[in-house]
Amino acid sequence: MAEDHDERRRRLARAFTEALPAPEEIREDWGLLIVDTVLPNGVWSRPGLSLRDRSLITIAALTALHRPNELRLHIGRGLDNGLSRAEIGELIMHMAIYGGFPVAVEGMRIAREVFDARDAAEKG
Amino acid sequence: MAEDHDERRRRLARAFTEALPAPEEIREDWGLLIVDTVLPNGVWSRPGLSLRDRSLITIAALTALHRPNELRLHIGRGLDNGLSRAEIGELIMHMAIYGGFPVAVEGMRIAREVFDARDAAEKG
Amino acid sequence: MAEDHDERRRRLARAFTEALPAPEEIREDWGLLIVDTVLPNGVWSRPGLSLRDRSLITIAALTALHRPNELRLHIGRGLDNGLSRAEIGELIMHMAIYGGFPVAVEGMRIAREVFDARDAAEKG
Amino acid sequence: MAEDHDERRRRLARAFTEALPAPEEIREDWGLLIVDTVLPNGVWSRPGLSLRDRSLITIAALTALHRPNELRLHIGRGLDNGLSRAEIGELIMHMAIYGGFPVAVEGMRIAREVFDARDAAEKG
Amino acid sequence: MAEDHDERRRRLARAFTEALPAPEEIREDWGLLIVDTVLPNGVWSRPGLSLRDRSLITIAALTALHRPNELRLHIGRGLDNGLSRAEIGELIMHMAIYGGFPVAVEGMRIAREVFDARDAAEKG
Amino acid sequence: MAEDHDERRRRLARAFTEALPAPEEIREDWGLLIVDTVLPNGVWSRPGLSLRDRSLITIAALTALHRPNELRLHIGRGLDNGLSRAEIGELIMHMAIYGGFPVAVEGMRIAREVFDARDAAEKG
Repeated sequence: MAEDHDERRRRLARAFTEALPAPEEIREDWGLLIVDTVLPNGVWSRPGLSLRDRSLITIAALTALHRPNELRLHIGRGLDNGLSRAEIGELIMHMAIYGGFPVAVEGMRIAREVFDARDAAEKG
Repeated sequence: MAEDHDERRRRLARAFTEALPAPEEIREDWGLLIVDTVLPNGVWSRPGLSLRDRSLITIAALTALHRPNELRLHIGRGLDNGLSRAEIGELIMHMAIYGGFPVAVEGMRIAREVFDARDAAEKG
Repeated sequence: MAEDHDERRRRLARAFTEALPAPEEIREDWGLLIVDTVLPNGVWSRPGLSLRDRSLITIAALTALHRPNELRLHIGRGLDNGLSRAEIGELIMHMAIYGGFPVAVEGMRIAREVFDARDAAEKG
Repeated sequence: MAEDHDERRRRLARAFTEALPAPEEIREDWGLLIVDTVLPNGVWSRPGLSLRDRSLITIAALTALHRPNELRLHIGRGLDNGLSRAEIGELIMHMAIYGGFPVAVEGMRIAREVFDARDAAEKG
Repeated sequence: MAEDHDERRRRLARAFTEALPAPEEIREDWGLLIVDTVLPNGVWSRPGLSLRDRSLITIAALTALHRPNELRLHIGRGLDNGLSRAEIGELIMHMAIYGGFPVAVEGMRIAREVFDARDAAEKG
Repeated sequence: MAEDHDERRRRLARAFTEALPAPEEIREDWGLLIVDTVLPNGVWSRPGLSLRDRSLITIAALTALHRPNELRLHIGRGLDNGLSRAEIGELIMHMAIYGGFPVAVEGMRIAREVFDARDAAEKG
């Protein structure tokens, strides 16, 4: 049913803008734009590349562009999408060549934080 | 009087480098360069675009270039120059298209902080 | 009628990918993503900012990010959306401060090309 | 034999700097740095990610960073490493979200050029 | 005499905007801003670093930021300011580490063009 | 002796990844890549530019690219390599022109932090 689909979109949009704050004046539309264009209904829902492939290229771009906050989220998502910790380390090292060592130093630091947080959560 | 004009430049330059720290060795010249080239005597003083227009394009550039600290200052200044909160949200959403969603996620977060701080200051 | 709306989307999508070439394998979906997310049905269709304001911020971002090919298109569109040549020059000069003089040098060169091409077209 | 290995390095280094010109004064060392650090003996030779994975992340980074000349080389190499044309198109579309639509417009244009050149070479 | 100083500024400003075209509407002010802020009267005229040092850091920034047109000008100026061809090659190689190999590949190509053009001019 | 050389590489690599954390899975190789490609055995060990020159261009690139964490390290190293505080301030001011004022504002803030920390350490 179209209505249910729309309710789900709005629920997801609210969830995004609770995790990623936005001004009240634009919050609902911004959340819906993310839902429809990015995920779960946007490019991430297209069948042309696997979720693992999409995590690879997203982490690559966020490392090379030096976007530390988004990178943190997507390293976690990459683990959920089937990348191993070793593969994520390998990918960030590869980015030292294409985006420069400083962006890879930052990427390594963030990956370490995400992995340590997962270890702590599992132990806890 | 030229002297008074110069005294005002030096007072403004000192104010800038109190808000935006710089090494003692360069501090005075750096403050004067900002005063003369940026504001209040630089590009911001030119009549060819309104202050509201200049705030629009400055916030656009700082969002797209991912310069969070300067963006915080200029979102506040944008409100002072006549932009509404809704317009600033709209502008940051537009930047998702031209600079990528990650820079807009950061921009939304910073705009929310600035707006919340203004609300708190008004209540306080 | 939904069908007519969809036909229009597809016609516009084809027009985009004739002007901006893309691989055959992705061309149709890519054109539709631009139509729905960017223009004419995406952020550019939202009422929260005027077309003139959207041209200002788009040209600002493309200048600061050093995207010469897209900048050329959007300087032309900015003229169509009501910006004067003097305002576009003023905007690019402002970007020298926020993105550095080299991006403004490029922006000035491209603006000059666009303006000269319009003059030639009017005379021709 | 170590000597043969070194001869191969020097031959490859010369081949790189014929394709990618460099000043005579640095040319040999520059070619050797690429051979040892990038490929074939650098990060590209590490077993932690497949060649297809490395092409995915390299094309992602070069698209997002707007490096058109290197992107052209790596789209061709990506085809050789097992990426399909549809996958490359999908990857560039994904970058519209993370690096902005302008970098994807450029990426699509370059991918189309590479694919057309391969078609022409096959026919010719 | 102040007047002569101003005449010189205007002559230099005109020369800049002949080499680096700008729209007629902004051309004079743009040229004057470059003269007063960049060179010869701006940061380049300050005694705190030698001209050779300023060429080093300018070429470094333009290589790392991937600004090919401005880089071409400043490699030539660097030779005039006392950098050797070998030093310029060394500097661009260093940038491979901090900005990524693709920006250094471009830098090497442009340096080679500038050096070849100088050789041709000397022979011619 | 080759063995001793290798032991030294591994000791330095461990020191790097203690200061700059990385995932356990890649940590050793990542540290070795830095040792061999960056410093002390990589580009920084080449004789073509002095250590002072290399600090100048590294600080220039890190300021212009807006890499605050790496910039902090390299401003300290620049002092150790013979740059004066006044020269570092001058260099960051120069970057306002080529990378935009916002990156120089950040650079000035970080330089001030590094200088203040050195003063505190000397007094302490």
